[in-house]
Amino acid sequence: MSRERLYLFDTTLRDGAQTNGVDFTLHDKRIIADMLDDLGIDYIEGGYPGANPSDTEFFAAKPKFEHAKFTAFGMTRRPGRSASNDPGLAALIEAKADAICFVAKSSEYQVRVALETTNEENLASIRDSVGAAKAAGREVMLDCEHFFDGYKENPQFALACAKAAYESGARWVVLCDTNGGTMPNEIEAIVGEVVKHIPGDHVGIHTHNDTEQAVANSLAAVRAGARQIQGTLNGLGERCGNANLCSLIPTLKLKKEFADKFEIGVSQEKLATLVHASRALDDILNRAPDRHAPYVGESAFVTKTGIHASAVLKDPQTYEHVAPEAIGNHRKVLVSDQAGRSNVIAELERAGIPFDKNDPKLTRLVEEMKEKEAAGYAYESADASFDLLARRTLGKVPDYFRVVQFDVNVEQRYNALAQRVTVAMAVVKVDVAGEMLISAAEGNGPVNALDVALRKDLGKYQRYIEGLRLVDYRVRILNGGTEAVTRVLIESEDEAGERWTTVGVSPNIIDASFQALMDSVVYKLVKSNAPA
Amino acid sequence: MSRERLYLFDTTLRDGAQTNGVDFTLHDKRIIADMLDDLGIDYIEGGYPGANPSDTEFFAAKPKFEHAKFTAFGMTRRPGRSASNDPGLAALIEAKADAICFVAKSSEYQVRVALETTNEENLASIRDSVGAAKAAGREVMLDCEHFFDGYKENPQFALACAKAAYESGARWVVLCDTNGGTMPNEIEAIVGEVVKHIPGDHVGIHTHNDTEQAVANSLAAVRAGARQIQGTLNGLGERCGNANLCSLIPTLKLKKEFADKFEIGVSQEKLATLVHASRALDDILNRAPDRHAPYVGESAFVTKTGIHASAVLKDPQTYEHVAPEAIGNHRKVLVSDQAGRSNVIAELERAGIPFDKNDPKLTRLVEEMKEKEAAGYAYESADASFDLLARRTLGKVPDYFRVVQFDVNVEQRYNALAQRVTVAMAVVKVDVAGEMLISAAEGNGPVNALDVALRKDLGKYQRYIEGLRLVDYRVRILNGGTEAVTRVLIESEDEAGERWTTVGVSPNIIDASFQALMDSVVYKLVKSNAPA
Repeated sequence: MSRERLYLFDTTLRDGAQTNGVDFTLHDKRIIADMLDDLGIDYIEGGYPGANPSDTEFFAAKPKFEHAKFTAFGMTRRPGRSASNDPGLAALIEAKADAICFVAKSSEYQVRVALETTNEENLASIRDSVGAAKAAGREVMLDCEHFFDGYKENPQFALACAKAAYESGARWVVLCDTNGGTMPNEIEAIVGEVVKHIPGDHVGIHTHNDTEQAVANSLAAVRAGARQIQGTLNGLGERCGNANLCSLIPTLKLKKEFADKFEIGVSQEKLATLVHASRALDDILNRAPDRHAPYVGESAFVTKTGIHASAVLKDPQTYEHVAPEAIGNHRKVLVSDQAGRSNVIAELERAGIPFDKNDPKLTRLVEEMKEKEAAGYAYESADASFDLLARRTLGKVPDYFRVVQFDVNVEQRYNALAQRVTVAMAVVKVDVAGEMLISAAEGNGPVNALDVALRKDLGKYQRYIEGLRLVDYRVRILNGGTEAVTRVLIESEDEAGERWTTVGVSPNIIDASFQALMDSVVYKLVKSNAPA
Repeated sequence: MSRERLYLFDTTLRDGAQTNGVDFTLHDKRIIADMLDDLGIDYIEGGYPGANPSDTEFFAAKPKFEHAKFTAFGMTRRPGRSASNDPGLAALIEAKADAICFVAKSSEYQVRVALETTNEENLASIRDSVGAAKAAGREVMLDCEHFFDGYKENPQFALACAKAAYESGARWVVLCDTNGGTMPNEIEAIVGEVVKHIPGDHVGIHTHNDTEQAVANSLAAVRAGARQIQGTLNGLGERCGNANLCSLIPTLKLKKEFADKFEIGVSQEKLATLVHASRALDDILNRAPDRHAPYVGESAFVTKTGIHASAVLKDPQTYEHVAPEAIGNHRKVLVSDQAGRSNVIAELERAGIPFDKNDPKLTRLVEEMKEKEAAGYAYESADASFDLLARRTLGKVPDYFRVVQFDVNVEQRYNALAQRVTVAMAVVKVDVAGEMLISAAEGNGPVNALDVALRKDLGKYQRYIEGLRLVDYRVRILNGGTEAVTRVLIESEDEAGERWTTVGVSPNIIDASFQALMDSVVYKLVKSNAPA
């Protein structure tokens, strides 16, 4: 049986950008869009060109996608204007995009209260705007805002809005549960009515998570005939978020009901990168990933209880609804030392560190990791620090050099021109095989100054670290307050483009940063086989 | 029409205690149980007496509940033993509880693989255990583990397990989606079959969130006839968690479909304490609350976009599916890059800052906010910094004091005992109405040292800031690398328990932190009406 095509529309960069606390830079947007394209998303909504400088700049050039259509969001023409005389509409149509997603009201109440216009003018605005974009050669869709609430008030008018878009040439008419308060059975019944008037393969669904049912609502709409789902990575979005693509994609790929019937743009191979995509977005946002997120969370396949754990060891299917590897996640059994040990062995094998299974040092490494992780070290995010910890515990890292002392100073004062200036300076004293080397440097902050000073002169090791540079620096406070413990993650890159991450933990942010900087330099020396 | 009774069963203290990272003390359990009873929950599952010392101790005395039945969880008798000769079962029956919730397999596959016994022995174990507890005068229920997966493999056997419990006198037969992989339409169909054999007012539902549909699955079961819902506060639970009572309760109370048909133990008045209960649990767990949680999250009723904001100001119903006050939450319109003038005006009104709509300074404020947000300031997260920016632009913040100079130093070296130590020290020089005050302080990090030094002596203003303390410190690097711009958010609290957040942005983390510290102190002075 041939499967029907189901389309995925991502609005992380538009509706997701409405999330309280989310503020994408242009650079963030480019990285996220490329990641979504790589995953196999069909439509990537980049934002609202003309609404703010960063969205406008993003649409100044079309990203080169392999797969996805780059989509611009915007309003239909204003009430009382003609389509040709609305600068907002003109800017939208001229944006460098493959598709345009308009938003228009489809609720009589909203037209009256929020828009303060008539039903007729609202319908005319939809027809004119869709028609104008279509005439300009764009693929067009319409987000019918407040569709379900509107349908419950006045089904004829809601349907008339949807039909106006379809009949004016919209490829997709997207039914939006804008306020997020609709129940799955209502969604299923209403979409079932809509597809009697508009073919299901032109109907999309856009839901919000205000009753924690955005995913169920999206799937209910698909059951009723809709063939496009709009959502965001990690369920980002205003208020309680949009439908979570990180939950929807695995369900569509792995659950028989959907997998037998539908084909989506995400391959099995790409599905296995979903955990990575989810975490990458959190990294960009500097958010702690939700450990309990369905499918992609760190704890999604973690078993804690004794009875469950022993069953999982007999057959993982006893307590797993899908195989974690399918999404790029992995199983973890928390209780037994056996499990901790096998986790560490798997990591050592992955890192290519030689070890002997019967070496008592291996047990010490397992213990030490447990202790350090309890103290805040995150070895799962810091591959290079895990590598060093393992090599050190198994007895294999030379003492290349020793930092005898460092001193960092930040001063803020008025200069001779009466301007307020802030100056950061660091001094590092290093013992390299008995030779004392003192280096000082300025930086635009204390960590930068320390980094530059540390890497300024390492004597005979200097040549190995010339190409080293810091590419990312992330800080998290593990318990509230300035007196809490600080975790610093530093990502470094060498001249060959290889990247690695190191971690430091301390109540003092400078100390934590220095630990991570040191690990990075030492890791580079190990990797370069520098002589002891 | 008289409404049917729908029962709520809370398993926060049992299934919720399986959550990765959750470890309740006896004291925690008592507080949480009282809170659940106060909310109006019907059954409170306290744990598994006999399984661990803290659960055993919790069941040594029965808590005094107003409303709820205190429920003990445990296994049915072991295969091959008689009920009277199973010490685990005996301990469970003797526990000081109103009700006992047994768990037993109801899947042929699980009986064979995990339990390694026969279908017949499994049924006998259910009958014997339920019968023994019933004979001891307890209210009994049975969690049919893996019921839905079991039903899909062998409906007769799954149903036989459920019926064995019901026929042996169980008050409730609870159908469990243990692995969390079942879809709502499957749940609805299967529960629909079960209630043909067991009356719906004896059928319960227990779901997990592995496909992000635990709430939808619970409601689907209720639609099909089940009359008890098991869940946890904040959706705590193993892997991806259990059905979230903080989402279910408001839906059952506020959505017409359910409110018209069912009565639950939670009153309207207690519903308005739900946000408090949710946050209280997070406090006990020392977790940051999920800002985006449906109904109870801090952002659940927050509007960010300009167009939405102006509609919400006309009529909140335009973008709210329920009234936030019903759950004890509140509405917020955010100030951000996306926000227009109407947002800024709404914030000024909320903050109680007097302004004139025609004042050209208002336009300057909107412009200044846009510029600062482009530079990295996040006013939507920093209410107090917005307040100060607004008051300053509109011309209303006195220059209480001026920081002439500060100096922070972090040194790492060996001490006299050959231990590596890190010392942070700060000096701050302040001009308070012509009087120069110099204060120095040590801290466990540079920001802490600076904070302590700044607040050590502000002369005549000192008395206003005595009760001030930092409760959270968050850092984000806005572009990769140590040379990037740093954004610091600081949350402060005063003696009255009021909290506010301030922001600082700079390439230098110390400078950014200092800006946020300064804003916090000045905000406190403004709030206290300190004289200029």
